[in-house]
Amino acid sequence: MKAETISIGTELLLGQITDTNAVWIAERLSEVGVDLYFRTTVGDNVGRIVDAIQHALTRADVIITTGGLGPTVDDMTREAVAKATARDLVLDENLLAQIRRMFERWGRGMSENNVRQAYIPRGATPIENPVGTAPVFIVEHQGKYVIALPGVPREMKYLMETRILPWLREKTGGEWIILSKTLRTCAVGESQVDEKITDLEASSNPTVGLLAHPGQTDVRVTAKARTRAEAETLIKEMEARVRERLGDWIYGEGDETVEEVTARALAARNWRIALAETNTAGKIAERLRARPEGTRIIKSAMLLDNVTELSEKNAGTIAEQFRNVTGADIAVAVLGTTNSGQDMYAEDTGHCAMAVATASGTITRAYSIGGISDQAQTWIITRALDLVRRATLKA
Amino acid sequence: MKAETISIGTELLLGQITDTNAVWIAERLSEVGVDLYFRTTVGDNVGRIVDAIQHALTRADVIITTGGLGPTVDDMTREAVAKATARDLVLDENLLAQIRRMFERWGRGMSENNVRQAYIPRGATPIENPVGTAPVFIVEHQGKYVIALPGVPREMKYLMETRILPWLREKTGGEWIILSKTLRTCAVGESQVDEKITDLEASSNPTVGLLAHPGQTDVRVTAKARTRAEAETLIKEMEARVRERLGDWIYGEGDETVEEVTARALAARNWRIALAETNTAGKIAERLRARPEGTRIIKSAMLLDNVTELSEKNAGTIAEQFRNVTGADIAVAVLGTTNSGQDMYAEDTGHCAMAVATASGTITRAYSIGGISDQAQTWIITRALDLVRRATLKA
Repeated sequence: MKAETISIGTELLLGQITDTNAVWIAERLSEVGVDLYFRTTVGDNVGRIVDAIQHALTRADVIITTGGLGPTVDDMTREAVAKATARDLVLDENLLAQIRRMFERWGRGMSENNVRQAYIPRGATPIENPVGTAPVFIVEHQGKYVIALPGVPREMKYLMETRILPWLREKTGGEWIILSKTLRTCAVGESQVDEKITDLEASSNPTVGLLAHPGQTDVRVTAKARTRAEAETLIKEMEARVRERLGDWIYGEGDETVEEVTARALAARNWRIALAETNTAGKIAERLRARPEGTRIIKSAMLLDNVTELSEKNAGTIAEQFRNVTGADIAVAVLGTTNSGQDMYAEDTGHCAMAVATASGTITRAYSIGGISDQAQTWIITRALDLVRRATLKA
Repeated sequence: MKAETISIGTELLLGQITDTNAVWIAERLSEVGVDLYFRTTVGDNVGRIVDAIQHALTRADVIITTGGLGPTVDDMTREAVAKATARDLVLDENLLAQIRRMFERWGRGMSENNVRQAYIPRGATPIENPVGTAPVFIVEHQGKYVIALPGVPREMKYLMETRILPWLREKTGGEWIILSKTLRTCAVGESQVDEKITDLEASSNPTVGLLAHPGQTDVRVTAKARTRAEAETLIKEMEARVRERLGDWIYGEGDETVEEVTARALAARNWRIALAETNTAGKIAERLRARPEGTRIIKSAMLLDNVTELSEKNAGTIAEQFRNVTGADIAVAVLGTTNSGQDMYAEDTGHCAMAVATASGTITRAYSIGGISDQAQTWIITRALDLVRRATLKA
């Protein structure tokens, strides 16, 4: 069953309010086996809402609208749904009585325009809204369904939970389990990851998608099945294939950070690290120190301010000598240019060289990235931590 | 000029990422006189992106897509725009050279799939992206424009600012000034406000819209003109008409809160208030005390825990006597039921009575709302503060 949500409201379209409803609905729909394929946001204009609903009817089985069911002239959903499904609006006496009762309960006078809320498209199934004044309704049109819900989040969620989701569950034949697992890579570009798993990304269940972050790329595997066990099996199988392709580009899972995994690796070996930084200004040491293992894994951390030779060779020498002097198990040196404010993509972005020295030897890298901009630093720090991680796991 | 934005990305559609791009673009478009009428969000599927673009071409003059310009198989925007505008993709050698140069600058290898990013729809105007690898393009199709931008916010904003907005500004003939003013009402329902200004809400410039919040309703007047002075005049004229209709339902402007305006009114008269609360648990006093005038305007604040008679009469008596005993200029008493956890719309929501006593007399109100739920409290506190405000301004 394919769904489209239509969020109605000028303040939503123009960003004055954040559309939390659409996201909440998206999450709940997947749980009942309904696939959300489109979200449309449109302002308080009958013609445009009609356009949105009519086009949605060509590409979805279930259309859920939120908003526009209030009592004011700007609330046009009733009229728009009626127009879009070629029917007129009729006054439902039961709904009108419910609205009156609600106002009586509150001890407030009902306005004339609240009567507007008791009109629904001819033939629609009315659904009482016990948590607000806007009665909602479902219209069946040419085998498709248009469900009109209030925009007030609390009311929308209540009605979705108690009436709509159970109804949808019946239509799709029951509950689905959706599980996801994220595998995290770093120190490689999104395009490099994509190249290795292109065919896997074509899979429809589980789906395999890439999510790029600054300096790293996640691979997200999502499976849908009738039972948790089935979903877990699907994920496990695909995870194995992804790992086979990406190998040690994958540093962790879920929301593990590089420093988290690196700190754990160091602690597992009972290793202590010595760090010599330049343009990263101590942030690499800081990130490791902030971990629970922090105090155990840092032997010494130093800032160098007069390094002129930013070569892999010099980085290697500094790392080895620093390791020697401090008696650390592993040492990392990051030598980078310190030009300020350079955009990472600017013509002359600077340069950095890094080295990690252990008893087994020294590995080095060099990049045409430097400077002290946030992006450059994130990029360099991620790679330096990854180099430490690899050296620690390999030794 | 009418616009539609199409946000491309499964993680956007399913809510894993918040779509900040669409909102930013919406704000900037209004500044160059382009009206945004629709926003569509769609996942990484060529067929569906094509559907979205083709339908957008029927209802907008300018279509701006964000996302899907990366190098991976899931990046389908190039292909979709080409299909939607009935043309093929061609390799642009200049763009390919630019991409190669960028990778050389970074000292990284370019992947085969990055070549994909140098393809653009035949006849499109390529636009170099100096802050990322995804070259962007504009396609002119049957008098409409499809503008494809990256999804990375920093890149999208840079290209909008430096290339697209100036280009749009030329097309619409220059700068527009958009000004808004918000008038704030409280203690009346949205439907009541709507009834008073129904005809004004039909105005196209300025526009007049309602925005409902818990316990209050804003009226937002927005004007568009060539100069600031013109826009201000349009706003001023409409504001006068709205104020004429709503009178003292309007307590303030902009983002002024009820307590802010009430505290200012008390301080302006050099008045001090005594407060006796029950179910609102001291929150009314708290809100006034938090204002800059806080310490000056509060004479005494008390919590009553053994009130059995929750009538307007008793509230009035308590307010008058408390005022007498404390020597305050004004006193407010709010007596409400304290049943816990009741939804505001539940069958038995409780009850409250409030009274404000001054030298001129005592005004009282009663509502079938009570309890200690957030919604009920917000509702009651707002009305109590408003009662104090009115009594202070009238005296």
